[in-house]
Amino acid sequence: MASVQDISVSASINLLSALAFLLAFAFLRLQPFNDRVYFPKWYLKGIRASPRSSGPSVRKFVNLDFRTYLKFWNWMPAALRMPEPELIDHAGLDSAVYIRIYLLGLKIFVPIAILAFAVLVPVNWTGKTLDNIKDLTYSDIDKLSISNVPSGSKRFWAHIVMAYVFTFWTCYILYKEYKIVSTKRLHFLASVNRRPDQYSVLVRNVPPDPDESVSEHVEHFFCVNHPDHYLTHQIVYNANKLAKLVEEKKSLQNWYTYYQTRYERNPKNRPQTKTGFWGLWGKTVDAINYYADEIEKISEEEAAEREKVMSDPKAIMPAAFVSFKSRWGAAVCAQTQQTSNPTLWLTEWAPEPRDVYWDNLAIPFVELNVRRLLMAVALFFLTFFFMIPIAFVQSIASIDGIEKVLPFLKPLIEAKGIKSIIQGFLPGIALKIFLILLPTILMIMSKIEGFTSLSYLDRRSASKYHLFILVNVFFGSIITGAAFQQLHKFANQAPSEIPKTVGVAIPMKATFFITYIMVDGWAGIAAEILRLLPLVMFHLKNTFLVKTEQDREQAMDPGSINFSTSEPRIQLYFLLGLVYAPVTPILLPFIIVFFAFAFMVFRHQIINVYDQKYESGARFWPDVHRRVIIGLIISQVLLMGLLSTRDAPKATPLILVLPVLTIWFHRFCKGRFESAFVKFPLQDAMVKDTLERATEPNLNLRAYLQDAYIHPVFKGIEFERPPAIDEEENNPLVSTKRNSRKSSKTGSIASPDAGV
Amino acid sequence: MASVQDISVSASINLLSALAFLLAFAFLRLQPFNDRVYFPKWYLKGIRASPRSSGPSVRKFVNLDFRTYLKFWNWMPAALRMPEPELIDHAGLDSAVYIRIYLLGLKIFVPIAILAFAVLVPVNWTGKTLDNIKDLTYSDIDKLSISNVPSGSKRFWAHIVMAYVFTFWTCYILYKEYKIVSTKRLHFLASVNRRPDQYSVLVRNVPPDPDESVSEHVEHFFCVNHPDHYLTHQIVYNANKLAKLVEEKKSLQNWYTYYQTRYERNPKNRPQTKTGFWGLWGKTVDAINYYADEIEKISEEEAAEREKVMSDPKAIMPAAFVSFKSRWGAAVCAQTQQTSNPTLWLTEWAPEPRDVYWDNLAIPFVELNVRRLLMAVALFFLTFFFMIPIAFVQSIASIDGIEKVLPFLKPLIEAKGIKSIIQGFLPGIALKIFLILLPTILMIMSKIEGFTSLSYLDRRSASKYHLFILVNVFFGSIITGAAFQQLHKFANQAPSEIPKTVGVAIPMKATFFITYIMVDGWAGIAAEILRLLPLVMFHLKNTFLVKTEQDREQAMDPGSINFSTSEPRIQLYFLLGLVYAPVTPILLPFIIVFFAFAFMVFRHQIINVYDQKYESGARFWPDVHRRVIIGLIISQVLLMGLLSTRDAPKATPLILVLPVLTIWFHRFCKGRFESAFVKFPLQDAMVKDTLERATEPNLNLRAYLQDAYIHPVFKGIEFERPPAIDEEENNPLVSTKRNSRKSSKTGSIASPDAGV
Repeated sequence: MASVQDISVSASINLLSALAFLLAFAFLRLQPFNDRVYFPKWYLKGIRASPRSSGPSVRKFVNLDFRTYLKFWNWMPAALRMPEPELIDHAGLDSAVYIRIYLLGLKIFVPIAILAFAVLVPVNWTGKTLDNIKDLTYSDIDKLSISNVPSGSKRFWAHIVMAYVFTFWTCYILYKEYKIVSTKRLHFLASVNRRPDQYSVLVRNVPPDPDESVSEHVEHFFCVNHPDHYLTHQIVYNANKLAKLVEEKKSLQNWYTYYQTRYERNPKNRPQTKTGFWGLWGKTVDAINYYADEIEKISEEEAAEREKVMSDPKAIMPAAFVSFKSRWGAAVCAQTQQTSNPTLWLTEWAPEPRDVYWDNLAIPFVELNVRRLLMAVALFFLTFFFMIPIAFVQSIASIDGIEKVLPFLKPLIEAKGIKSIIQGFLPGIALKIFLILLPTILMIMSKIEGFTSLSYLDRRSASKYHLFILVNVFFGSIITGAAFQQLHKFANQAPSEIPKTVGVAIPMKATFFITYIMVDGWAGIAAEILRLLPLVMFHLKNTFLVKTEQDREQAMDPGSINFSTSEPRIQLYFLLGLVYAPVTPILLPFIIVFFAFAFMVFRHQIINVYDQKYESGARFWPDVHRRVIIGLIISQVLLMGLLSTRDAPKATPLILVLPVLTIWFHRFCKGRFESAFVKFPLQDAMVKDTLERATEPNLNLRAYLQDAYIHPVFKGIEFERPPAIDEEENNPLVSTKRNSRKSSKTGSIASPDAGV
Repeated sequence: MASVQDISVSASINLLSALAFLLAFAFLRLQPFNDRVYFPKWYLKGIRASPRSSGPSVRKFVNLDFRTYLKFWNWMPAALRMPEPELIDHAGLDSAVYIRIYLLGLKIFVPIAILAFAVLVPVNWTGKTLDNIKDLTYSDIDKLSISNVPSGSKRFWAHIVMAYVFTFWTCYILYKEYKIVSTKRLHFLASVNRRPDQYSVLVRNVPPDPDESVSEHVEHFFCVNHPDHYLTHQIVYNANKLAKLVEEKKSLQNWYTYYQTRYERNPKNRPQTKTGFWGLWGKTVDAINYYADEIEKISEEEAAEREKVMSDPKAIMPAAFVSFKSRWGAAVCAQTQQTSNPTLWLTEWAPEPRDVYWDNLAIPFVELNVRRLLMAVALFFLTFFFMIPIAFVQSIASIDGIEKVLPFLKPLIEAKGIKSIIQGFLPGIALKIFLILLPTILMIMSKIEGFTSLSYLDRRSASKYHLFILVNVFFGSIITGAAFQQLHKFANQAPSEIPKTVGVAIPMKATFFITYIMVDGWAGIAAEILRLLPLVMFHLKNTFLVKTEQDREQAMDPGSINFSTSEPRIQLYFLLGLVYAPVTPILLPFIIVFFAFAFMVFRHQIINVYDQKYESGARFWPDVHRRVIIGLIISQVLLMGLLSTRDAPKATPLILVLPVLTIWFHRFCKGRFESAFVKFPLQDAMVKDTLERATEPNLNLRAYLQDAYIHPVFKGIEFERPPAIDEEENNPLVSTKRNSRKSSKTGSIASPDAGV
């Protein structure tokens, strides 16, 4: 068990490293040659242009004005100064709402911490159980925790009452925040400029038709079934291979530029490369010629593929983006079922064009179901059997573990300073390394599941990651740390025993999680603002690839909030805060520092750095809400388990009320707010439509929507469109080409397409 | 443990009683004076008129034609003769699909029984474990069950393979049946005649408006937001009190008629009554005058209330039935969200007029949520604490129990014949009595939950009842019967122990459930066809109340399928069949007999007797499907538990695959079929609309829909309608009365109503 001293060593190490990161950041950001690393957002907005200051050329690279160094903390107030409406305008609603998650943390935990310190800490401190126990070494931190209260004491009433207060406060804040965010979203959707996705619907699983092409079939179907509203549509080409070729070509071109730059700088030495993988083996050839040849080859291939995609009917996917004359028409089509077979003509609100994940647009219904089954099974195994390596590493990463495995290190480890370092640092690091490996796998799994927009993929990956963190980081650390052997017993324990086992281990694990918060939270966030990797990458690219101002623009890597990994991580802090609030309140200040610091850093980042890949309009908030609720319920169940082992018999039924109320609260909020994030209400659509008709009566919507949903690789290329479309539109109930079959069908005047 | 002899005694008792019921039925139905009890459906259809045969007056009451008695089994083939399309036409889709549940049972269990008898019975019979155990008395039935296979035997492979086969077969049949039913439903909806609910949407939670009445507010809202489709609407009056008065008046009138009839038959003796409750105490008065006075009083009260409801604006509920010009418009409105606040202007597809449950149309969102929370908690307590009385009664209702409680009965009970009777009969009866009490409570709970249609109430009650049967009848019988003391242990057992405990008890309970099937299934169904209660009630009414042919029409009580109680009961048979198929296959023939017999009886009943209160178009099938799936999963888990106690180590992972696949299959079916039962596809709506426009171009839809949704107590009374409605319709964007506020609102041209 780590003592207060261990904690303070760990705290100072982490504080020092965080401080070092911040100082490095303060210094580096003032150098003009780093300007594009630390302020890319402003460049992309066209507000800044390099170099920042004119004057002697050295000033272009190094900041010699020492007065600016004295004000190097300025970024912090500057980050907080921008008001939220402006922030939404500047960075989008997704980003603005994302940092509200940190604010939510502060709103929940600051009052809870004050209450806990005012009530629970004195109650625990004067409990004096641990003073009487001599055989176990408890640290001072444990004296502030619930462990110090004797079994069967009346003092537990304080904890029960506080559990109620904490639950109600958390729910109250969650409710208010859900309300604020949904209002912001509706306001955002109402005030936002015309966007193609407002008029468009993504149609998938268009049934094959022997007589008509996909395009004609879509056209006829919507002309018949949405006669007053259908405007136009865009078919989806299977350009996955083409996109890959384009990607490859870009990489080859980068290498070509790199070698050419090298050659120009050193004309004596013509660069060479090997033809094998990554230039590591194979025949040695002249690099510039080799890459020039390769580029030519791939260009031809690309042109052929492009030709093939655009002419081959098989390259057209059974999906389309259908656009309507009004937002009302699109809202109606997106929310209704089209045919009696619910696996065909599936309509959903189209994502933003840049948000579309093109690879997944054409997966048939049955295949989709099989994929999801397989991924669910895979997620189960990944989540529950990944636990074993973590437990193994952690058992080594304790003083006793290391001494057992590597006995010759014993004298070194036992040295006082080093012991503290190892004990404070190692378990956190081991966990962190595991977590870095994971997000990519989870994103691939989400892609296999077949979701059609990047924002949806992010949300699904976040769900998976959250499950993983919950099982492996939270429960995994508590149980394996205490005793890895418990795992098997665990599966064979009574449902009422599990909360007890975990609940009892909770107070013992407080110091571990305090260390974890400092490593992952404090130092991790400070590293985030330093942007070490983009810094290095930018200067490498700037040196070898950049020739024109446009190249430099491309060399910038503003990055974006990685919702799929960072949101589940925040949720771990919510969970820890809620679990430890009634048990070991001393943990709360660490969490509050994390939330405050992260709020500031990410506010700075979204103002100055990040460039979001898409704008979903805070579509993720229901997930955030749900996960905080999950954390709340876990905290209640564990407190119940803990108290039931402490001879507090009335505690179980009393606390059992809380999860029931919390689940009900969640359902209530779901009914009250969730649809704002899923559906587009007709009234709002009608208001916007009417307004638009009044202000822009001559708007040519067709021209506006014509090329909105084109696969990025086709951007800038003209398509030939069949002229038939315009004629048919004025006469929706046209006869199709299927005259032969039409005579055999009686009774269906409406549409021969109808028979699916 | 009951022996084969006990079973056969019980079987013969039940067979005899079933036979007696059938004979009584065969005799009674041939008597002309019972004609209206056994053939009410045909009277309601207007095909039959009493008396059936003309001739001598005795023939009107007693059937003297002995040849007909010889053919008294004729009803059975007659019941099976009517083809299904005709049946749907005759009795409605609900009824036709309801008896398909029995057919589903036959389709699932006949092949399973054949397989089980061909494979499992020989495997079990030759297991020969029980022959070696002398200290426990096992019956011959147990020799056919899995109990007879020695632990760790390779024979368990047969059971595992059969579990797979049974699962796949059940899923296959379920899939086929879901497909058939959903096709039938779509066909039914497509071919059905014009019905008001096709054009109408139920709007609830209309927000209050200070300047406009509910009617005006609804009018304006839909004129603005569905300008091309809105036709008319009907407001909902709070006529609950009025309906109660009408009901009371009817009862008083019945008493008045009864006493008058008595007086007419016996003019010397003027009947008297007491004014107190049920005429049991209070002042003695002249009955005819008393009831005449009472009727007059209540008539006045009714008139006053009627006046009040129709003039008082507070009697108008914040709900309305909105009708559209086309089915397309109604389908769109029902499936979309209207405003940004999802708790206001809630739209749903309107139920049939006769299906509306008027009392629940005006419950606000928050109250609805609180009610559902309370009812969920109540259901939990009802389900789990109702168990105790059952266990108590059952423990008495065993030979040992009776002997212990009433030792002086011992010599009587030990008499051989009586012992068999008690053992075979009592436990089933005890259970049955409990079950009779319950449905009414559950229906009241569903009504409190606030559902708006009778069909929905039935479905919700069925869900509750199913849970109850599952916990109390199925698990309750297995666990308490084996050992009531296990209950508490149970809550503290490991999740992996619970299936073991239950699984082990399963084979021991086979004889109990066989008895239960015979009592509840065989004799119960035979009693159903006899209709003893309606028979008595009809003759009582016929004697005392009937004066005109119309009265006689009203005295008929055709009844209807009580979905909320009978469907969950069928599900118990599915569950028993699936659980016992791999364990004690001898139970299967009893279930098959039940399904076949019930199929025939109910087919007869829906053809000749039942008159459904509403037609939901087989809206209940997803529930039926889900519950069979639940039964399947329970059977798999219990088999897993059972095998894991028998040293069949590979069984657990092998069988664990089955529930995963079954759940996935359920989700697949849900995605594939469920929407056919929830949504109305736009294509189908458009087809019907187009057809109608072509065939009936001059249809006056407004007149057709005008009074469709009027509270039954107002039927036949003319409403005055504000003439303003028609004017406004031609100019949807009219200015409202709120001129004062309008000037302060800028930017919203669309509608001042919009701001909710």
